[in-house]
Amino acid sequence: MGARQYPDLLHAYATVRARSLEIAAPLSAEDCCAQSMPDASPIKWHLAHTTWFFETFILEAHEAGFAPFHPAFRVLFNSYYNGIGAKHPRPQRGLLTRPALDEVRAYRHDVDRRIARLLAGGASSPALAALLELGLQHEQQHQELMLTDLKHLLSRNPLYPAYEATQAPGAADAPPLAWIGFEGGLAEIGHEGGGFCFDNELPRHRSYLAPFALASRLATNGDYLAFIEAGGYRDPALWLAEGWDQVCAGELAHPLYWVAHGGGGWQEFTLHGLQPLDLRRPVTHVSLYEADAYARWRAARLPTEAEWEFAARRAALDLGQGSLHPQAAAGEGLVQMFGACWQWTASSYAPYPGYAPAPGAIGEYNGKFMVNQYVLRGSSCATPRGHARASYRNFFPAAARWQFTGIRLAR
Amino acid sequence: MGARQYPDLLHAYATVRARSLEIAAPLSAEDCCAQSMPDASPIKWHLAHTTWFFETFILEAHEAGFAPFHPAFRVLFNSYYNGIGAKHPRPQRGLLTRPALDEVRAYRHDVDRRIARLLAGGASSPALAALLELGLQHEQQHQELMLTDLKHLLSRNPLYPAYEATQAPGAADAPPLAWIGFEGGLAEIGHEGGGFCFDNELPRHRSYLAPFALASRLATNGDYLAFIEAGGYRDPALWLAEGWDQVCAGELAHPLYWVAHGGGGWQEFTLHGLQPLDLRRPVTHVSLYEADAYARWRAARLPTEAEWEFAARRAALDLGQGSLHPQAAAGEGLVQMFGACWQWTASSYAPYPGYAPAPGAIGEYNGKFMVNQYVLRGSSCATPRGHARASYRNFFPAAARWQFTGIRLAR
Amino acid sequence: MGARQYPDLLHAYATVRARSLEIAAPLSAEDCCAQSMPDASPIKWHLAHTTWFFETFILEAHEAGFAPFHPAFRVLFNSYYNGIGAKHPRPQRGLLTRPALDEVRAYRHDVDRRIARLLAGGASSPALAALLELGLQHEQQHQELMLTDLKHLLSRNPLYPAYEATQAPGAADAPPLAWIGFEGGLAEIGHEGGGFCFDNELPRHRSYLAPFALASRLATNGDYLAFIEAGGYRDPALWLAEGWDQVCAGELAHPLYWVAHGGGGWQEFTLHGLQPLDLRRPVTHVSLYEADAYARWRAARLPTEAEWEFAARRAALDLGQGSLHPQAAAGEGLVQMFGACWQWTASSYAPYPGYAPAPGAIGEYNGKFMVNQYVLRGSSCATPRGHARASYRNFFPAAARWQFTGIRLAR
Amino acid sequence: MGARQYPDLLHAYATVRARSLEIAAPLSAEDCCAQSMPDASPIKWHLAHTTWFFETFILEAHEAGFAPFHPAFRVLFNSYYNGIGAKHPRPQRGLLTRPALDEVRAYRHDVDRRIARLLAGGASSPALAALLELGLQHEQQHQELMLTDLKHLLSRNPLYPAYEATQAPGAADAPPLAWIGFEGGLAEIGHEGGGFCFDNELPRHRSYLAPFALASRLATNGDYLAFIEAGGYRDPALWLAEGWDQVCAGELAHPLYWVAHGGGGWQEFTLHGLQPLDLRRPVTHVSLYEADAYARWRAARLPTEAEWEFAARRAALDLGQGSLHPQAAAGEGLVQMFGACWQWTASSYAPYPGYAPAPGAIGEYNGKFMVNQYVLRGSSCATPRGHARASYRNFFPAAARWQFTGIRLAR
Repeated sequence: MGARQYPDLLHAYATVRARSLEIAAPLSAEDCCAQSMPDASPIKWHLAHTTWFFETFILEAHEAGFAPFHPAFRVLFNSYYNGIGAKHPRPQRGLLTRPALDEVRAYRHDVDRRIARLLAGGASSPALAALLELGLQHEQQHQELMLTDLKHLLSRNPLYPAYEATQAPGAADAPPLAWIGFEGGLAEIGHEGGGFCFDNELPRHRSYLAPFALASRLATNGDYLAFIEAGGYRDPALWLAEGWDQVCAGELAHPLYWVAHGGGGWQEFTLHGLQPLDLRRPVTHVSLYEADAYARWRAARLPTEAEWEFAARRAALDLGQGSLHPQAAAGEGLVQMFGACWQWTASSYAPYPGYAPAPGAIGEYNGKFMVNQYVLRGSSCATPRGHARASYRNFFPAAARWQFTGIRLAR
Repeated sequence: MGARQYPDLLHAYATVRARSLEIAAPLSAEDCCAQSMPDASPIKWHLAHTTWFFETFILEAHEAGFAPFHPAFRVLFNSYYNGIGAKHPRPQRGLLTRPALDEVRAYRHDVDRRIARLLAGGASSPALAALLELGLQHEQQHQELMLTDLKHLLSRNPLYPAYEATQAPGAADAPPLAWIGFEGGLAEIGHEGGGFCFDNELPRHRSYLAPFALASRLATNGDYLAFIEAGGYRDPALWLAEGWDQVCAGELAHPLYWVAHGGGGWQEFTLHGLQPLDLRRPVTHVSLYEADAYARWRAARLPTEAEWEFAARRAALDLGQGSLHPQAAAGEGLVQMFGACWQWTASSYAPYPGYAPAPGAIGEYNGKFMVNQYVLRGSSCATPRGHARASYRNFFPAAARWQFTGIRLAR
Repeated sequence: MGARQYPDLLHAYATVRARSLEIAAPLSAEDCCAQSMPDASPIKWHLAHTTWFFETFILEAHEAGFAPFHPAFRVLFNSYYNGIGAKHPRPQRGLLTRPALDEVRAYRHDVDRRIARLLAGGASSPALAALLELGLQHEQQHQELMLTDLKHLLSRNPLYPAYEATQAPGAADAPPLAWIGFEGGLAEIGHEGGGFCFDNELPRHRSYLAPFALASRLATNGDYLAFIEAGGYRDPALWLAEGWDQVCAGELAHPLYWVAHGGGGWQEFTLHGLQPLDLRRPVTHVSLYEADAYARWRAARLPTEAEWEFAARRAALDLGQGSLHPQAAAGEGLVQMFGACWQWTASSYAPYPGYAPAPGAIGEYNGKFMVNQYVLRGSSCATPRGHARASYRNFFPAAARWQFTGIRLAR
Repeated sequence: MGARQYPDLLHAYATVRARSLEIAAPLSAEDCCAQSMPDASPIKWHLAHTTWFFETFILEAHEAGFAPFHPAFRVLFNSYYNGIGAKHPRPQRGLLTRPALDEVRAYRHDVDRRIARLLAGGASSPALAALLELGLQHEQQHQELMLTDLKHLLSRNPLYPAYEATQAPGAADAPPLAWIGFEGGLAEIGHEGGGFCFDNELPRHRSYLAPFALASRLATNGDYLAFIEAGGYRDPALWLAEGWDQVCAGELAHPLYWVAHGGGGWQEFTLHGLQPLDLRRPVTHVSLYEADAYARWRAARLPTEAEWEFAARRAALDLGQGSLHPQAAAGEGLVQMFGACWQWTASSYAPYPGYAPAPGAIGEYNGKFMVNQYVLRGSSCATPRGHARASYRNFFPAAARWQFTGIRLAR
């Protein structure tokens, strides 16, 4: 978990922190306060919680004469760290109309000022630098959540408001799907080298891979529409039992943000508002159940995370154009590994052999979630620049659909 | 259902409409957007829905060349009128960050302007006047709900923010409880005379009353604390079975906004913030189950709505001092019938003999709720001035506690 | 609450107790053990609980050297008497495969023997006689529940097994519906005279009734089918809001035991098995919501319980032919007041003026249920002979449908 | 998936089928009918469903002039095969008081007779033999479920009835826990050789294992009690987040069948009735959450399924004494791999590389459950003799506790 040093670190701090405010800039205080489901959080809460992280794990430990910005914030903006103490109930984050958005901005400003002072004062132990780096990576994770949580909130509004009024860049035709073969063998999996990684990417270890092939690009809306039109949601033989239960309960009939159009066609809700469904772009906002059923219909399967990582070491970090909606594939070979959609894998989220979380509350960051979740690999159009790498392990429950999740086939 | 005429009506319109904005004035847009439970609505929604009422039932029917302010508002701000069409789901009112509060204010302004133009233009049939009067009474009902829904929202915030920073007026000692006897007999119940009433107050009809007595004042916090300290919440013999189930499930242990204090005492959350419990003020925010158990413990009972109305015709409309929290009783005889707390009765909400709702969607105003609710009589500190009368029938489910509900004993 | 004396009382005891076993006689131990919903109880549980009632309220108080038949039964077969102590959770009554049905029969036999010995020994205080009478009336209530709970259980079985293989007696055409007028006035309501009544039928008291009319007979399946075919379940204007919510949730589309037939017609599940719907018999197994919607569609309403009782004092106790399914109406004037279907009233279940339950656990019999339930009057085809009277107050929640509930219109 | 041939197969058929009836023999029809939770099924349903399996997959396909024993059974006793058609809802299996237990026994007899006739008639294609073998293995799986489902049912009864009145064989002291080391390396995992296996044990494939060690025996009740007494259920740092949520919700405080004793000690409900907790026997009926928390407290972890299988190939199939409760460990080296408790692994249930289910409805046997479940290895005291092997993959959700699940540590 190597980390940058001051003044690079202070520069990175300023850049990352500013980006969170940029994301919130086009939004009203009302937009920033509401919570559309227990899994999602208000923008204001994200702005405060990421600040709480620095205040709690850095200032409280390293600032001389530390006093909290507001004593109640320790509870209000604690996400899930039992080691820190009590937490405001997650489903009630949207009821916190106070503190106001402006007070949360003042909270950010105050903590930023004190962090800068701390670093300028020469506090720069490796442990502190590592925590600060972790805080920045943490904030980048929340930047992606801010966009996906906001998208979910806006999608619940019958007015279908756009976050960004401009159009997404036009899409070109996706290249035909090709199969890229890999020999496999005894592979080294997990982070290596000097840059930052989360503890769940370690330790690097061996894993045996049989020969396999990956689809050259993600499944498109057009591909997925063919699945729907062929009766994919009506054939139990294609589905995991839990997924079929959701289909039968009427909870699963198309990707999350597809909207049936009066005239028989489909629209898709995006951060640019409601748009005609673009068949060339990758399908997104699907659950693992849908990804798995689609793969079975294509006589394929989902990759394991080891296969994906093995292949990704040979792929370019093509991070897209900074769009708010995934772009169509372009180019030859293995494309869209990064920057379009997170890719469901067949691997449940589990510790690597020899995994050891950090001691103390910070050790709750990853390890305690290693059950009943599935690993997603790559990154999405909403991932902050510089936050993606081949060994990155994202994870969500199989039914989750509000992230930019997509489908890469394997066989 | 007699009604005022233009220009009195226009004056009343302006006064009532302005009051709603006054209530919202101290609040931020965030405060006005959040919804703390399905039973409560956001302030912004109240501001819009009361406007929708005038737009839908008056402008749409009477304005030449009517065009809606915004076509989607017909659905977004329809509360429960199936006769009008689709409705936005009630539990999702708090997700409507758009339209913004300012747009809702513009909506109000636009409808107000058009209503004024309509009236100035001489449109003044008795039917229109009656609908306008109904719209104003409807808005007054929502003004009370704005305060109680807001109180519930603020109570969910661990910061316990005050709506009004000033203190509630100091309370004097409550007079000792006395019993006021009534002969009963064949009574006339229901609205009479020329002023406005809701359809559920009609028709006036006969009801036979055996002799009875009412408590001269409401039960105080001190009275109720004695019940708690005597083990009232631990003795099943005092409770209706449904109430006891709630007690056993841990949902019912003290009035809704009482907060146990570290040192063993009690505080009470009010619209003035968290306050030491004032034993002289009436107990409020109790369910019918609690009111009934307390009465049984006192070897008394709750009055029927006919008894209450019979007695109220002889009582003064003492509407209090416009406080945001119920005041202690003062004076001799039957006091606190109005202006402190709504009073649970033993009467389920049912149509009077010969009751007939209006034809069309407006007929959904009252009648369809006449099952599994209980009548409350009087008015509360949150009731708008001029909105109370002896024949008024308020109604809520037995478990509801977020209104200013109190206890008057009978025997 | 007058009561019979020994030896009449012992004879009545033997007769009533034998009847419970007769009801269970055609059933297997499996049939007697299962519980199809929390509101219903297994036959075996009914057989044991009614025995528990005599053991707990009579033997324990009056038998010298009392020892319980089995110490655990005090908890297992306590229905809802908090004054007695702990209770086995109601939804888990169907899991009690032990004690076996034969052990419960032995329990009955043992208690019967001891009761007989107690009475033969001369124990016959008025209090004991009153409790014994109450126990018999209680057992008769459970005899009706045994049939309705069993019907619900059998209805959940796709084999639609018949409780009684023989056919219900053939029905004749129902007479046309006529309206029987009543003058009303100041009526005396509640039980009078020397026979037994439950405490909720007292005290007898005055109630003022405006003139009214009752339908001469119950609504038939044919009447109700016309309501369905006219779109009754699709028009929100006909429904109480709670009922319409159930319709929209897909929970309410026809009477509980109607089964849509392949060819477009209807069948009805009865204790005689699945039968073609007989249009001449009364509609039954409807909720208050359905009864109320049907009445509104007929431009009528449901009677109040006072109206019903006022009229019933002039009607014959025509208790039917002891059938297991309601018979078609026959005769002139006000018919089917008793012996066909319980009749929903518009009256919520509330204490009569001056009502006072008995002291101690036995006082829990009726009073604590007087909220959020509605009174049904009359009796049904499943009511034991001798158990019906004009002042009898049955009560169920508005949504309950598994009793033999029917519709008598008023206006 | 090699299979035996006639007449060995017919002999095996008779033996396995007879065993199911033996398990039910001590039980009443009532015991066999009840269902204590949706995850569990009634004994009668097990007896019928295992018969349905042979009727549906063998007789229907291979018997000349096939006619079903009862047409409704095709739906009533279909567990989860969408390819066969409709299914009776799982949570309502306990409501099927008909067919009676005797009719189900007649159903078994009829199908047994026809299977014997089919085999005697020379029908013995490899496909048929494989299906028959699968049917027998399937029935053996249900024999274990019969015991665990029954145990759960009896545990819900406050009388704590014993299935078998005799005592479990006395336990000796467990040997001290030792660590058995394994070199790991590139291992072959999955079934090999000619005997039967389920499709989920194939294909045999390579997996790389780092060096590891396994505990020589299972964790005992004494070991686990030390965890409890050290505050294991009060320290969030030991728990996966989902497990801690269950602890906080009061759902998880000790192994499922431990019963706190008045005097401060513990009892354990077993198929021999309620017994003093025997500290020498293995702890059982724990969830994956509990197993994982215990391991973390011991500074250890759970094994992966590949580690377990790698080690098990070197262990004896010590199948215990046919007890109904797990015996204490005995002997040196790696013991209790089989015959005491199923052992939670850290591996989620996923397809082996190259896994392909059978075509048609029979392909639903395993594959569609490969999500959100965890693999258990070994076998338990309730596993039928001959049903265990090193490559066997049992699987249950992480929260499941009603199987004989135990804990083997790894590091």
